[in-house]
Amino acid sequence: MSTGEKLKIGICQLAVRNDKSLNMDQADAMISQAAGQGCRLVILPEMFNCPYQSELFPEYAETWPDGPTIRRLAAAAAKHRITLVGGSIPEREHEKIFNTSFVFGEQGNLVARHRKVHLFDVDIKDGTVFQESKTLTAGDQATVVTVGDLTFGVAICYDIRFQAFARTMMLQGAKLLIYPAAFGPVTGPAHWELLMRSRAIDNQVFIVGAAPAKTPGAEYQAYGHSMAVDPWGNILVRAEEDEAVLSCELDFSFLEKVRSELPILQHWRDEFYKE
Amino acid sequence: MSTGEKLKIGICQLAVRNDKSLNMDQADAMISQAAGQGCRLVILPEMFNCPYQSELFPEYAETWPDGPTIRRLAAAAAKHRITLVGGSIPEREHEKIFNTSFVFGEQGNLVARHRKVHLFDVDIKDGTVFQESKTLTAGDQATVVTVGDLTFGVAICYDIRFQAFARTMMLQGAKLLIYPAAFGPVTGPAHWELLMRSRAIDNQVFIVGAAPAKTPGAEYQAYGHSMAVDPWGNILVRAEEDEAVLSCELDFSFLEKVRSELPILQHWRDEFYKE
Repeated sequence: MSTGEKLKIGICQLAVRNDKSLNMDQADAMISQAAGQGCRLVILPEMFNCPYQSELFPEYAETWPDGPTIRRLAAAAAKHRITLVGGSIPEREHEKIFNTSFVFGEQGNLVARHRKVHLFDVDIKDGTVFQESKTLTAGDQATVVTVGDLTFGVAICYDIRFQAFARTMMLQGAKLLIYPAAFGPVTGPAHWELLMRSRAIDNQVFIVGAAPAKTPGAEYQAYGHSMAVDPWGNILVRAEEDEAVLSCELDFSFLEKVRSELPILQHWRDEFYKE
Repeated sequence: MSTGEKLKIGICQLAVRNDKSLNMDQADAMISQAAGQGCRLVILPEMFNCPYQSELFPEYAETWPDGPTIRRLAAAAAKHRITLVGGSIPEREHEKIFNTSFVFGEQGNLVARHRKVHLFDVDIKDGTVFQESKTLTAGDQATVVTVGDLTFGVAICYDIRFQAFARTMMLQGAKLLIYPAAFGPVTGPAHWELLMRSRAIDNQVFIVGAAPAKTPGAEYQAYGHSMAVDPWGNILVRAEEDEAVLSCELDFSFLEKVRSELPILQHWRDEFYKE
């Protein structure tokens, strides 16, 4: 993937239903559409092939490299000669299940695998109750990869809550942080856009958040609102709740301009911050 | 200052003119107004007694404890029996000048002094050019103080850009972070609210930002928009550009509720973050 200064990306905001194979069909269709629009990097949402319910993760889980979703993601990347951030799926390894993002290169080769580091265990009184740790195991590292001349990071949903994790990826050279995610109807309106815009301006990177569409009848109602944000915090493109294929161009010369004009990365004074 | 669970605070958004004494007169009037409304903690903006221009800082600078502004701040705190975060003023110590916030207790006693740690040296092409380091020296520590049963942090303007600095204050027990500030017409609309709301939700603390009003004819046009934000990111009160005395109540039981329901502070995994 040679970007020069500009890179066209696509975000596939699909509805997630109970049928794993049909979910992948829909992902395939949207990937085709994005690639047809000239996108060189295409991104799917968190748990795009499995309803976001802890108890379903073991049932839908797949094992590298022969899981059907995994194979189809690799094939889609190769077919369209794109870099594909395969949202996330439940991944089984031995007795453990992870919330995993597989990233494929233009030959369908695996270029990165991120396992969600921060598990979503919350109990918000007016709506959102979730215990990912009931069925999932946490990953143990940040994921930054270089494909062609672009270095980017991949993290998943609740990972975005942790400012130092975003900074870790930036320090490893990422100029774009990609978050497949599935915020809900309470935290979505309150924090989703705010988190993406603040990670963007604090780290002076591009941020992409890819979310499932709101799915009528689903037990977990995703908030949608996939978006891309530039290093100044401007929203480049944003979906509403419904299914959508978004695309936009990332101009990395703008990132350099922001870092030069407002040099907060140079002004960081680690000696005065304590853990 | 005994808060119980709730604390009424006041924010004085005053216009800053060339006459130091008149600026303090206006601050006095607004402090009286806030105290009269029952505020127990009152906050002034950054450089409230001196136009925000690097070359003026030496001329307006005062020395502890006998500077006229410093004495009047102490007197105002004692008179109204409030805790007073005296925004900031240029402070001279030997050959150095700092951007300093003096904080006074109910007896007019000095309870904290914060010297701006991150100096604002930027060169944004479409408007904001500033070099604080031409005349100022940077402080070298975070400032967290306990008054009565409230522990709060004080930092100044550009300090808010550094996520780890806010976290440092939170880790030292601050449940309220107070930022006297003076964002301008470019970074203000782009980032001011975003920064305060994101520091609030990342650290699950209250945030108060106190800014000067927009002052007709001034060389530096402050953005205004003083505000208070709760730990969920809700804006409790917000000014526009003009002079205003804001007040609102901070309910610290809400902070405990947020931390309990969405336990991101417990989910922090420092072993996976790298500097």
